[in-house]
Amino acid sequence: MAEKVLVENKQVIFKGFVEGTPKETDLQVVVSATTELKPPKGSGAFLVKNLYLSCDPYMRGRMRDFRDSYIPPFVPGQPIEGFGVSKVVGSDNPTFKPGDLISGFTGWEEYSLISRTEQLRKVTPDGDIPLSFHVGLLGMPGFTAYAGFYEVCSPKKGECVLVSAASGAVGQLVGQLAKLHGCYVVGSCGSSQKVDLLRNKLGFDEAFNYKEEAELDAALKRYFPQGIDIYFDNVGGDMLDAAILNMRIHGRIAVCGMVSEKNLSDPRGIRNVFNLISKRIRMQGFLQSDYIHLYPRFLEHVISYYKQGKIIYIEDMNEGLESAPSAFVGLFAGTNVGKQVIRVAHE
Amino acid sequence: MAEKVLVENKQVIFKGFVEGTPKETDLQVVVSATTELKPPKGSGAFLVKNLYLSCDPYMRGRMRDFRDSYIPPFVPGQPIEGFGVSKVVGSDNPTFKPGDLISGFTGWEEYSLISRTEQLRKVTPDGDIPLSFHVGLLGMPGFTAYAGFYEVCSPKKGECVLVSAASGAVGQLVGQLAKLHGCYVVGSCGSSQKVDLLRNKLGFDEAFNYKEEAELDAALKRYFPQGIDIYFDNVGGDMLDAAILNMRIHGRIAVCGMVSEKNLSDPRGIRNVFNLISKRIRMQGFLQSDYIHLYPRFLEHVISYYKQGKIIYIEDMNEGLESAPSAFVGLFAGTNVGKQVIRVAHE
Ligand SMILES: NC(=O)c1ccc[n+]([C@@H]2O[C@H](COP(=O)([O-])OP(=O)(O)OC[C@H]3O[C@@H](n4cnc5c(N)ncnc54)[C@H](OP(=O)(O)O)[C@@H]3O)[C@@H](O)[C@H]2O)c1
Ligand SMILES: NC(=O)c1ccc[n+]([C@@H]2O[C@H](COP(=O)([O-])OP(=O)(O)OC[C@H]3O[C@@H](n4cnc5c(N)ncnc54)[C@H](OP(=O)(O)O)[C@@H]3O)[C@@H](O)[C@H]2O)c1
Repeated sequence: MAEKVLVENKQVIFKGFVEGTPKETDLQVVVSATTELKPPKGSGAFLVKNLYLSCDPYMRGRMRDFRDSYIPPFVPGQPIEGFGVSKVVGSDNPTFKPGDLISGFTGWEEYSLISRTEQLRKVTPDGDIPLSFHVGLLGMPGFTAYAGFYEVCSPKKGECVLVSAASGAVGQLVGQLAKLHGCYVVGSCGSSQKVDLLRNKLGFDEAFNYKEEAELDAALKRYFPQGIDIYFDNVGGDMLDAAILNMRIHGRIAVCGMVSEKNLSDPRGIRNVFNLISKRIRMQGFLQSDYIHLYPRFLEHVISYYKQGKIIYIEDMNEGLESAPSAFVGLFAGTNVGKQVIRVAHE
Repeated sequence: MAEKVLVENKQVIFKGFVEGTPKETDLQVVVSATTELKPPKGSGAFLVKNLYLSCDPYMRGRMRDFRDSYIPPFVPGQPIEGFGVSKVVGSDNPTFKPGDLISGFTGWEEYSLISRTEQLRKVTPDGDIPLSFHVGLLGMPGFTAYAGFYEVCSPKKGECVLVSAASGAVGQLVGQLAKLHGCYVVGSCGSSQKVDLLRNKLGFDEAFNYKEEAELDAALKRYFPQGIDIYFDNVGGDMLDAAILNMRIHGRIAVCGMVSEKNLSDPRGIRNVFNLISKRIRMQGFLQSDYIHLYPRFLEHVISYYKQGKIIYIEDMNEGLESAPSAFVGLFAGTNVGKQVIRVAHE
């Protein structure tokens, strides 16, 4: 019988269900478990060492005790899970060998036992592309931008595009794709540092800090005197309402996220719905997962754009699992500048 | 010089701009004008005797002092205008000859001088089709149902369809087209008489009186245990919000009208917008006028259905211009049972 290799396993535990905005204290970093670095024989599973973990706003939805969603809630007392980039360290599955790099669902911990492989992708190391990009530019958020912009927004050259949470994981790519498509692009974001990034690094035509605008309606009229053709909505709430009021005839709204809703069970209302009729607006909610068949095409396009220097991608990298709770809750305060990632271990 | 033929001209005058729900006293029936039964020579205009006038909810929008809409406001002190069926009695336009029947924009008065002919259709009398149908089943409301259902709802056989204001001018045809398409169709309406009509005359699968439901959400769950694929929304407000909550994945909402909004400048909010994302709902506002190229096909289809007895059409006919103010404001109280028409003169 082979010798057992046991290691300590630091974990980020989900303490219990949450209403409203998550707080750091809803998560707890513990070193509770020791893990064998090999999966049980015959399990078909494999053990990974997590390198990068992704902080994504949708995870808040899994902190509610609400089972009627497209994804089940987290289990109190267990590590939360999310997208990550990991290295296989032990395997009972012939497809995934020690040393392989993978991207997909994993636990917020140092080591995870993976048995569900449906949504996993193997990652081929590429000296030109940071591994962490596989949870950002080339991962779920990047794909959301791609599918949402091309498949939901029906963009045309020369159209006027508004993106909210514009410097974030999804928004920064939406804006750059829209610019490459020949659109006029304005981003809204929550700090002057982000305004500067959008204008001077990410190539947006204009950007503004919504926190400094007394009237969102007036801000939108300033940047879109002729109205908005496409609103890529990452925030919901007041910005959505103001955008509806400023849409052009036959405008399209891709409803991607509602990160501004402090409390999903008691949301604010959207009051300007009548404009949907008078301006014949199409407002369409979407989930990136519905477009997963486009993933190969997405990777090809976006990798090519990136290697040609036509797009850039800004990450906000936190070091160590200890920083995970604050990095995660920071999403809802806008502390992240770019895609929020946690480095769990150095490659 | 020819002799002048002067007649008295009863008119329904727009007294002034209105906020909120129109009242009978916002309109006034007067016999102020005498009209010559001949248009001015060289004007290219023609004079019509109005036979039927259509009461349409959108007209409320023209009673507001709001110029930024797709249609200008009514002029205070002048007769209001709307769709009608009229007979040419004098003409300076070779295309429209005395005796011709036309359908299109006209004034709410006995005689109107018509100079804009873009939106007019000549009506060929057909013994099987009441003339008044040209402002209902075969007019703008019928066309709205047709364009909205086929072009906006993307219906599929077997899908579950909710129609609000279901016994009205638009709703009754939407429901019947949906049945002919092989859908399961439920109508909401505001009285037990209308429930009975929907179930027993118009062939809806189910119908309910929203005024008797303590919880619209519970009512929709009762009729759509598996959820709603298509909501054809004629009313907005609470029913729209409850429908959003009960949509199925990839459901579609055709936003046709908001007749339940008592005050368009201070609307209630739609709170369940988050469901657009989790259920990937497409919510699309539309105006029938965008689809006008489909009018000939619409007429062909609907006339054929009607002549085959596959659809029926219920009208609520008021007699005389004197009844016009109450007929019109009745739209917003639900007093009309079927398409509200005013007979101005017998054919
Ligand atoms: N439909 C899908 O399939 C799908 C997939 C992925 C993501 N999403 C959604 O897309 C949105 C963006 O996700 P992401 O990963 O790119 O996150 P992100 O933008 O990188 O991070 C969240 C950002 O939201 C902004 N924010 C937080 N609270 C706000 C508030 N009250 N009002 C306005 N903005 C606020 C903050 O930026 P500021 O400093 O600029 O305020 C924060 O940096 C989220 O709503 C997410 O749920 C949807
Ligand atoms: N988008 C377009 O191109 C277009 C074109 C034509 C019409 N429309 C819209 O389509 C809708 C239906 O028009 P229509 O001509 O067929 O009118 P209709 O249904 O014949 O008449 C209006 C009906 O609305 C209902 N109603 C009134 N107040 C209500 C309230 N507070 N809550 C719920 N229902 C209420 C009443 O029926 P109940 O007794 O059942 O409540 C009333 O009979 C209107 O909103 C209209 O503006 C849109």
